[in-house]
Amino acid sequence: MIQSIPDAKLVGRGSKTENTVIAVGGVSVGGPDIVVMAGPCSVENEEQLIATAFAVKRAGAKILRGGAYKPRTSPYSFRGLHEEGLKLLAEARRATGLPVVTEAMDTQHLDLVCAHADMIQIGSRNMQNYTLLEEVGKLRVPVLLKRGFSATIKEFLLAAEYIAGGGNEQIVLCERGIRTFETSTRNTLDLSAVPLLKRWTHLPVIVDPSHGTGVWWLVPHMARAAVAVGADGLLIEVHVNPQAALSDGEQSLRPEKFERMMNDIRPVAHAMGRGW
Amino acid sequence: MIQSIPDAKLVGRGSKTENTVIAVGGVSVGGPDIVVMAGPCSVENEEQLIATAFAVKRAGAKILRGGAYKPRTSPYSFRGLHEEGLKLLAEARRATGLPVVTEAMDTQHLDLVCAHADMIQIGSRNMQNYTLLEEVGKLRVPVLLKRGFSATIKEFLLAAEYIAGGGNEQIVLCERGIRTFETSTRNTLDLSAVPLLKRWTHLPVIVDPSHGTGVWWLVPHMARAAVAVGADGLLIEVHVNPQAALSDGEQSLRPEKFERMMNDIRPVAHAMGRGW
Amino acid sequence: MIQSIPDAKLVGRGSKTENTVIAVGGVSVGGPDIVVMAGPCSVENEEQLIATAFAVKRAGAKILRGGAYKPRTSPYSFRGLHEEGLKLLAEARRATGLPVVTEAMDTQHLDLVCAHADMIQIGSRNMQNYTLLEEVGKLRVPVLLKRGFSATIKEFLLAAEYIAGGGNEQIVLCERGIRTFETSTRNTLDLSAVPLLKRWTHLPVIVDPSHGTGVWWLVPHMARAAVAVGADGLLIEVHVNPQAALSDGEQSLRPEKFERMMNDIRPVAHAMGRGW
Amino acid sequence: MIQSIPDAKLVGRGSKTENTVIAVGGVSVGGPDIVVMAGPCSVENEEQLIATAFAVKRAGAKILRGGAYKPRTSPYSFRGLHEEGLKLLAEARRATGLPVVTEAMDTQHLDLVCAHADMIQIGSRNMQNYTLLEEVGKLRVPVLLKRGFSATIKEFLLAAEYIAGGGNEQIVLCERGIRTFETSTRNTLDLSAVPLLKRWTHLPVIVDPSHGTGVWWLVPHMARAAVAVGADGLLIEVHVNPQAALSDGEQSLRPEKFERMMNDIRPVAHAMGRGW
Repeated sequence: MIQSIPDAKLVGRGSKTENTVIAVGGVSVGGPDIVVMAGPCSVENEEQLIATAFAVKRAGAKILRGGAYKPRTSPYSFRGLHEEGLKLLAEARRATGLPVVTEAMDTQHLDLVCAHADMIQIGSRNMQNYTLLEEVGKLRVPVLLKRGFSATIKEFLLAAEYIAGGGNEQIVLCERGIRTFETSTRNTLDLSAVPLLKRWTHLPVIVDPSHGTGVWWLVPHMARAAVAVGADGLLIEVHVNPQAALSDGEQSLRPEKFERMMNDIRPVAHAMGRGW
Repeated sequence: MIQSIPDAKLVGRGSKTENTVIAVGGVSVGGPDIVVMAGPCSVENEEQLIATAFAVKRAGAKILRGGAYKPRTSPYSFRGLHEEGLKLLAEARRATGLPVVTEAMDTQHLDLVCAHADMIQIGSRNMQNYTLLEEVGKLRVPVLLKRGFSATIKEFLLAAEYIAGGGNEQIVLCERGIRTFETSTRNTLDLSAVPLLKRWTHLPVIVDPSHGTGVWWLVPHMARAAVAVGADGLLIEVHVNPQAALSDGEQSLRPEKFERMMNDIRPVAHAMGRGW
Repeated sequence: MIQSIPDAKLVGRGSKTENTVIAVGGVSVGGPDIVVMAGPCSVENEEQLIATAFAVKRAGAKILRGGAYKPRTSPYSFRGLHEEGLKLLAEARRATGLPVVTEAMDTQHLDLVCAHADMIQIGSRNMQNYTLLEEVGKLRVPVLLKRGFSATIKEFLLAAEYIAGGGNEQIVLCERGIRTFETSTRNTLDLSAVPLLKRWTHLPVIVDPSHGTGVWWLVPHMARAAVAVGADGLLIEVHVNPQAALSDGEQSLRPEKFERMMNDIRPVAHAMGRGW
Repeated sequence: MIQSIPDAKLVGRGSKTENTVIAVGGVSVGGPDIVVMAGPCSVENEEQLIATAFAVKRAGAKILRGGAYKPRTSPYSFRGLHEEGLKLLAEARRATGLPVVTEAMDTQHLDLVCAHADMIQIGSRNMQNYTLLEEVGKLRVPVLLKRGFSATIKEFLLAAEYIAGGGNEQIVLCERGIRTFETSTRNTLDLSAVPLLKRWTHLPVIVDPSHGTGVWWLVPHMARAAVAVGADGLLIEVHVNPQAALSDGEQSLRPEKFERMMNDIRPVAHAMGRGW
């Protein structure tokens, strides 16, 4: 079994023993607080986004997530509102005060995404899009780097190293499930990645149980487990009407279920000496 | 994604909504208490076993585990003490009062194992050894059925159905990690299997983070996560001298580390409304 | 990447450089001829079996396959005719002159299987049933050992080593597909296993494209590829009426399609300097 | 199992029953001839490239491959000569007359790659880089699209659909191995993908046994199997001095071994009614 990753020169523990804390808007990721990032898979319209944003804020989420550029397996699926979606996110931030994280799929999107968002997400399919990683490394904006769905932990850390190589060490790593033979879940959430990463890197690590399971009712269970295993935060899909969602409805929580989930994980967070 | 398993007629929730609680010696598995089963991978000698048994009992373990018949990839690896190992387990039970669980690899071992142990373990490699499952189904002894390392949750439940078909419903299911492409860990512990199984079956579900990770220092982290996700118990490898262990030394905890682990998971168990 | 397997002391090339040729009835496996073993997944009744046996013989098959003991995921699926099936196989052998291979699932079946068949098959799910391997090692009967559906090549060879350890080196290895994330096929046929095994062991290696794909029309394509990659034989499911088959109908060829397949692979066999 | 892919509207057989033949320079891919594309993993210097180009041409290769932009897991590995590499490729084309295929990793490279190469390769890690696929779709240049190392066949075809959606249907698909649990090979070459793709799409399909195995001596075996399974061509790594290669030396053939491989596969190609 792999014991260490020598090429993780900048993001590895070898370069820094204390944990890195990253400021996203006014929110600290990687400190004592568990940071929950929540919101719809796709930004669909103003009403949906604003209603969801207020709901997740009320329940304790600290950062709003929402996709304006959506990588989809089929070109005929809904692929996001693009610039209009970014503007709605900025509007939701003004309305709620929540910082915003959203995905950039290409170097061409970076200027626009930076103009409207507080944190750039690099999605699972782009974890080894090295040109994109290098461009993001030149920015001075927090990055949420999701693990490729078939990336080893070593490859994941070295993807972060690409970003850090440009001088941008504001990187939050996100475990989001890996592709296995199991068909009861969309992916297999690899929670052992969290303590492994916390040992090998000084960067914060969060968990996405929505993509990690693909099943809405599993999300609160895996969120609790993620907190217990030492994650610094969670990324959760919430939708006011999952049945009508343009993407990922099956794995999205209604706002009231999200609120219940937050109450459900609080005692475990406290048991870990954390809260929000 | 798979939504239900119609052929799980006896072990499925369709046949019984309340949870099954199984008595192993005087210990209840599947009730409010978290049941920790701990001990060495292999029974090696009297001194090692008795010392480990008292140590795990002191730390809160309720059942002693130890292998007398060891399935090993290479025929040239240590394969257990066989009947002598069973006798040592029985002796450790007398000394400590802890009920004993140990693996039977073949129908030919069943009489001897039943004579010395309180619970028969069916190992991962034998999860689809249907003759063995059926013979165990004819007994009236508790069974610890481990998930095959590449079995889907559906296949796992149907293996339990084979046992139940013979009239023996005293079955505890154990998630122990699945084989994936990741090489930093020995297996990928699939904790989402726990809430899925708890929804689909009335049987108790426990987790083995020792095989699930193959890395001793990951065990306490994953044990906490297992408790938080709703597991009814844990199966943990403990050895008084892991470096000298004849099998699985890399994933075994020393007694003092095991005790620290038990203290470490207690607050999470309490947060889940459970204890031991 | 793994370069060699030191513990393969008996089955490895270290112990013997020339290829082992195994006699099954009067048929040599591992010599210059490609040996095709064909027949139904399950023995269902006399008419089905005899008709299929004559048809596969006519098309060039040299050994008849058919299951009397069927390992099935669900206990409620058809699990074979057991002793009656073995008797029908023996009858088909008398009628056609074809030697017979059939699966034994347990040590308890061995006497009966040996009494009726020329070769004992150890199925994929039992590749690591070490008690069964050791018992088979004590016999002096040819063994067809199928790769576990999630076994590495190393584990596969060491399973053969268990058999050889008892003194029985009449072992034919069979690649039959591994479990992966791909869902268009039942398994992923790993043809690179053939040249790897031919380099690491002196035992014959055959390929089962029926289980390897799970799709009848893919079978002839993969059979051609198997011959081109150097396989010593093929294991093919043939059924007179696949729609009505009690198991594996989707991957079974009708006799006329099997005959076409045999004609189809002959030029490739000749290109490899082989035939039948 | 998946039976068809409705969203493959343009690349699927539904839109066109005859096979698409694509002209790369003067070479037809997808016609009766097997087209072998060969050359070094990375372009390293003029001498290495020109010597290799002449050698592969002499042995029967029809297209020269060579990487100028190299996606590498670690940022500290050799990542290609970039524009200088493209110029060397163009020079090798002038010297040998062989058309050239090389990888573009980003939309920013497209102009430069198109200026120097005859065919653009989209690598495995970029198979779901949808912005890149769409930009390539706007060009009128042949594209070599490699399967993602963990992409299903469905996802692979839908990636091609992204390119075709822009009006560019000059797409050659390349199976190059998938990530599995097996560790004896770098990837598991999934040859069943070839007949599946040939049934579901009208596009040509080739196979890369170099990446598919990661082991140079396995390459000729798997090349033969690829031809036997119906591939329209091969992509082979050849290096004049594999030990000194800056990337992928372990899986590269020396020119004389490549020539022997070409002689080795010719009879199988003839058996399939093809040649070069």
